[in-house]
Amino acid sequence: MITQTDKAYLEQARLEALDGLAEGGYPVGAVLVDGNQAIATGRNRSNQTGDMTAHAEIDCLRNAGAAVEREGLTLYTTMSPCEMCSGAVIRFGITRVVIGDAVSFAGDPDHLRRHGVEVEVVNDPDCMALMEG
Amino acid sequence: MITQTDKAYLEQARLEALDGLAEGGYPVGAVLVDGNQAIATGRNRSNQTGDMTAHAEIDCLRNAGAAVEREGLTLYTTMSPCEMCSGAVIRFGITRVVIGDAVSFAGDPDHLRRHGVEVEVVNDPDCMALMEG
Repeated sequence: MITQTDKAYLEQARLEALDGLAEGGYPVGAVLVDGNQAIATGRNRSNQTGDMTAHAEIDCLRNAGAAVEREGLTLYTTMSPCEMCSGAVIRFGITRVVIGDAVSFAGDPDHLRRHGVEVEVVNDPDCMALMEG
Repeated sequence: MITQTDKAYLEQARLEALDGLAEGGYPVGAVLVDGNQAIATGRNRSNQTGDMTAHAEIDCLRNAGAAVEREGLTLYTTMSPCEMCSGAVIRFGITRVVIGDAVSFAGDPDHLRRHGVEVEVVNDPDCMALMEG
């Protein structure tokens, strides 16, 4: 179930994506939340840095440092995570993933669910609009 | 099948791991090869940098920049890749993975194989010795 808090963090992720777009990047953003506190944000930086692993989710987890190992974290991402980012979610035991858009890129939410991750697919029109450009 | 060339690149990965150990890091190293040319190296830098995503394979793929998108690449890694690193291998279409040690950490080579990746598990005593410290 999606709460108002979820919507607020997904909007924060969307603003990260827009910041990325303004830098010439792919418009994908992410926010990592512990309880009701955002502990890290990230955006896709592949275009900006030449680092093809710098997807929004990886950038966010990187920015979180050792806090990625806390229990009960929620990762908000504007676009469904790819194989690498899904693997990172599983590796670091992220409890819950909220996906803004699984239409532009489907990813594999069921792969996450099979590994015990709670997944919410929102398909928010504002997140989907990010990829239309 | 493991060739002499494979053994040489696995040894190069092991030297990366030893460099990491000397820096106070986890002794895991990786080399990315295109044909008979190493195009990037990496090592686990989590301890050194606080970036928990800085596994050897991710560090190596990061250092390769846009070259990760070339076809026919082989990734050598001293230790079996975790979920995140396996996902990166799948995401970037790495053709072949040569694993030095799948005993200290099993990983999931069959997951890679199911995604069409050719996997060689060497279980090289020198690579296994890295994790004994």
